[in-house]
Amino acid sequence: MTAPHVLSSFNSQGLMRHLGVTMQSASDGRCVLEVGFAPTHTQQRGYFHAGVTSAIADTAAGYAAISLISKDHDVLTIEFKINLMNPAVGDHLRAEAEVIKRGRTIMVTRAVVYGVRGDEKTPCAEFLGTMFVVEKRDPV
Amino acid sequence: MTAPHVLSSFNSQGLMRHLGVTMQSASDGRCVLEVGFAPTHTQQRGYFHAGVTSAIADTAAGYAAISLISKDHDVLTIEFKINLMNPAVGDHLRAEAEVIKRGRTIMVTRAVVYGVRGDEKTPCAEFLGTMFVVEKRDPV
Amino acid sequence: MTAPHVLSSFNSQGLMRHLGVTMQSASDGRCVLEVGFAPTHTQQRGYFHAGVTSAIADTAAGYAAISLISKDHDVLTIEFKINLMNPAVGDHLRAEAEVIKRGRTIMVTRAVVYGVRGDEKTPCAEFLGTMFVVEKRDPV
Amino acid sequence: MTAPHVLSSFNSQGLMRHLGVTMQSASDGRCVLEVGFAPTHTQQRGYFHAGVTSAIADTAAGYAAISLISKDHDVLTIEFKINLMNPAVGDHLRAEAEVIKRGRTIMVTRAVVYGVRGDEKTPCAEFLGTMFVVEKRDPV
Repeated sequence: MTAPHVLSSFNSQGLMRHLGVTMQSASDGRCVLEVGFAPTHTQQRGYFHAGVTSAIADTAAGYAAISLISKDHDVLTIEFKINLMNPAVGDHLRAEAEVIKRGRTIMVTRAVVYGVRGDEKTPCAEFLGTMFVVEKRDPV
Repeated sequence: MTAPHVLSSFNSQGLMRHLGVTMQSASDGRCVLEVGFAPTHTQQRGYFHAGVTSAIADTAAGYAAISLISKDHDVLTIEFKINLMNPAVGDHLRAEAEVIKRGRTIMVTRAVVYGVRGDEKTPCAEFLGTMFVVEKRDPV
Repeated sequence: MTAPHVLSSFNSQGLMRHLGVTMQSASDGRCVLEVGFAPTHTQQRGYFHAGVTSAIADTAAGYAAISLISKDHDVLTIEFKINLMNPAVGDHLRAEAEVIKRGRTIMVTRAVVYGVRGDEKTPCAEFLGTMFVVEKRDPV
Repeated sequence: MTAPHVLSSFNSQGLMRHLGVTMQSASDGRCVLEVGFAPTHTQQRGYFHAGVTSAIADTAAGYAAISLISKDHDVLTIEFKINLMNPAVGDHLRAEAEVIKRGRTIMVTRAVVYGVRGDEKTPCAEFLGTMFVVEKRDPV
């Protein structure tokens, strides 16, 4: 189950609200986010914009990491790489992220973003990223 | 000067409009985009969200490539990597992209995103990405 | 089973011979390579050098892709990203690669490199890369 | 000028010796390495193998970072991404690396690898990587 402080941190992200992204779950080093299709989310061909795809992949990866740390710590993305393998189309996108290396200060995360139409789920992006664990009071 | 079909393609991107991103220029393999700070653009600490930073870096890189090709071709992002080096803060973000390898089907692009406050411009992200040139009628 | 022309291409790579890398298998979009520990393979702390780790990850990914194409085509690495998650130690390293997106001209590949000591296999690196399919006669 | 402990760390890397890589300089957040062409360094088309290109890019980036820290600290590569833009051909390869973000524990580095033939220097790869600063006595 998603811990209240994890959900509350997610809810404080203005961008996620602006894009209508919802947190399905975030616990035990895994996180799932979803975002519905909207004309506000498109690139020039009418697909989901890579900016949306990468925003939910990165955010899901971040909360997969946050789900493993204490309330007084936070996680910052150091870097990520994403491969956009198939057009991001569907009723909604779904990002499934997991921590693949849990370090004290460095966490490595992986995510797959799927385009979902009804029961059909097609992988459209593969994400590999590095997160940095900080104390919440730390200057960055 | 930015060619009309380049600007018109940019203007057709729903996400860029939704985020209030403006195209400063796109020509000769270079592109500059800007986006103002807004509470709709934040992560949990109130900085610009990495999703915004990477969206404008990727889009600037894409239009740097598009500025080099004919009207009947388009560009798709194959993949990118971004390092978030400093907190993305400021009145606005500015992405400056350029094509560093111009191939017939593959273009390699680099971008730097700056946090801008008044006259001060601090690099907050470094982007390296790969673009694929397609005919507009091509199925993807 | 590894096709003869795949094995013969691998055997023509001077670097793989120089490092003593062996091909365990390459077929159906998957490839496994191994390399024994040697003092010629180290970085400053005596672990396997990241150069060895990334060389076998990239090569395994390349032959995973080559295993899917015809004899008169070849594969070039466009780019890759690798996360070095744990010290690369052990009697030998083992790279296990697979094609996760099979396109006509672009293939996306993933690999994990393990440090192996006896029966124990520890992941030390995660690789995500993009390959380009060319005709063998193509100028590059 | 390259500090003696930096050069001595480089000289302790078995792989660099095995490949015949020489350190041209490493100071003030910059490092240049070179490696001559040899049949032991090739991929299946007779060019420099991407494993050599990435090994010297990563090592140059590492020593660019090491040149900025004290003797009792060391640098480990967390991750890197490399774009192979042109065939790596020439009499030798030359990697030029620099630290683009100097943090206390995290350094971001950039490198360009050139194929050099006589006076002609062609960029063949662009590298972007993240380094982690550790105390030499630290367990990893």
